[in-house]
Amino acid sequence: MKLIRNRTFLIVGLGLIGGSYAKALHRNGFRVTAITKEQADIDYAVEMGYIDEGSTEVDPRLVGEADITVFALYPHIFKEWIRDYQQYFKSGSYITDVTGVKSAVVYEIQDMLRDDVEFIAAHPMAGKECSGVQNSDDSIFRDANYIVVPTKKNTAEAIEMCESLGSVLGFWRVGVLSPEEHDEMIGFLSQLTHCIAISLMNCNRNDDLSKYTGDSFRDLTRIAKINDELWSELFLLNKKPLLREMQAFEEELKSLREAIESEDTDTIRAKMRLSTERRKIFDKK
Amino acid sequence: MKLIRNRTFLIVGLGLIGGSYAKALHRNGFRVTAITKEQADIDYAVEMGYIDEGSTEVDPRLVGEADITVFALYPHIFKEWIRDYQQYFKSGSYITDVTGVKSAVVYEIQDMLRDDVEFIAAHPMAGKECSGVQNSDDSIFRDANYIVVPTKKNTAEAIEMCESLGSVLGFWRVGVLSPEEHDEMIGFLSQLTHCIAISLMNCNRNDDLSKYTGDSFRDLTRIAKINDELWSELFLLNKKPLLREMQAFEEELKSLREAIESEDTDTIRAKMRLSTERRKIFDKK
Repeated sequence: MKLIRNRTFLIVGLGLIGGSYAKALHRNGFRVTAITKEQADIDYAVEMGYIDEGSTEVDPRLVGEADITVFALYPHIFKEWIRDYQQYFKSGSYITDVTGVKSAVVYEIQDMLRDDVEFIAAHPMAGKECSGVQNSDDSIFRDANYIVVPTKKNTAEAIEMCESLGSVLGFWRVGVLSPEEHDEMIGFLSQLTHCIAISLMNCNRNDDLSKYTGDSFRDLTRIAKINDELWSELFLLNKKPLLREMQAFEEELKSLREAIESEDTDTIRAKMRLSTERRKIFDKK
Repeated sequence: MKLIRNRTFLIVGLGLIGGSYAKALHRNGFRVTAITKEQADIDYAVEMGYIDEGSTEVDPRLVGEADITVFALYPHIFKEWIRDYQQYFKSGSYITDVTGVKSAVVYEIQDMLRDDVEFIAAHPMAGKECSGVQNSDDSIFRDANYIVVPTKKNTAEAIEMCESLGSVLGFWRVGVLSPEEHDEMIGFLSQLTHCIAISLMNCNRNDDLSKYTGDSFRDLTRIAKINDELWSELFLLNKKPLLREMQAFEEELKSLREAIESEDTDTIRAKMRLSTERRKIFDKK
């Protein structure tokens, strides 16, 4: 099944990402509805033309009308929602998500889900330093990756549908990874980098240094501004890969420190040349 | 003494920084000469109107005509130059520099310098990811800090002259720090951040990850492209403060890792809230 014009999308959780999905989908001619906590967010999204209608309650009609339901919730709330309300899904419909960790979520949801509804997981690797539907902006997808994360339980149709969704949303690149590959990658590229930024910001009482700060320090600490409720949950749900990546980084930094300590110029320079060489491929997109 | 129109500047070392100094000074109406290794660099700078004349030799006439000589050399070459050629300086003239570390350079140069010439150290905290006079660009000073780094040996006149120089070059902010304060600050804001970027780039065989990379990883590794000859020298010349900062960062990262390991959500969230709070003051300039 390809995405086709007359499908109805339900967005559950109308924040920055949910709102940006709604905006992109509605602009592409799909019917979009939403369920979210705050009436003000629904009013805003209707007024801006992101959604056709919405509800602050889990309205069985809205759930039952959806061909594809997108969950943009905290992981533990997502699980509770499926447990409590899955009876309302339309038979044969799909559900997908935007969760930033996968192994700890996908298998559990698939196990508890009805047999006539299919969950195909996805991770839109896009974001902003602000939150809320009022900051919705589907241009954040333009330079970003959309990862479809199927398990053995998923059908080829669901995977294809989800890839089409990534394209319709306007992502720069749509890829497919297993839950384990995804979590390994995210542990390194995203979670480790946030741990570094947090620790760099915290390791020094640096208020008086802000006036001397150049781009290096600013770049390395930009992501030290972080939603502590969401990210602490994501860290713990991806604990094993994250700890492994943190330890590998700590080892590498320690070995650089020891080379500086012993004034081993050859080792220091070799490390710098390696990092220079490796960084080059990250310039291209 | 304030900077005045009819002073002559000699730039020793016409690379990216030396060239950008020349460009800014010449545009402000000063006579600017240069001594550098490559004739092609002198030809380029003359043609572009950055300098009036230059030499690939240490020309006693050019050195003797300068009221202010700016050294933009690797630290060890700077020291050798002073040892070998200081007899050519004009009596009563000033010399200054652009070196990225201070304690390991300033005292030694001041000790070996003639009594009738004054060395006032400075660090223009600006740069680019490319080098060479052909990339000269004095707009890199516009958002950057210029730090004057006097010792007890310096006169009020020299400090004032050097502050004026920072203003004339177009720096956003001119500050004054002792060599020790400067090195502490640079160990944290610049050198530690480069060590982190290098280690993050090296700790994982990540060629295949480049296609999934978002802004976080790109931002944290931008400075992993590094001139290994210059930076290994700067690291070792600032070994003590740098090692101290590296250890403080390693401790902080380890304590975050242990909180994740023991699923201590309260500690993780407290660290995230602290980093979020502290990062805010770095948004303002």
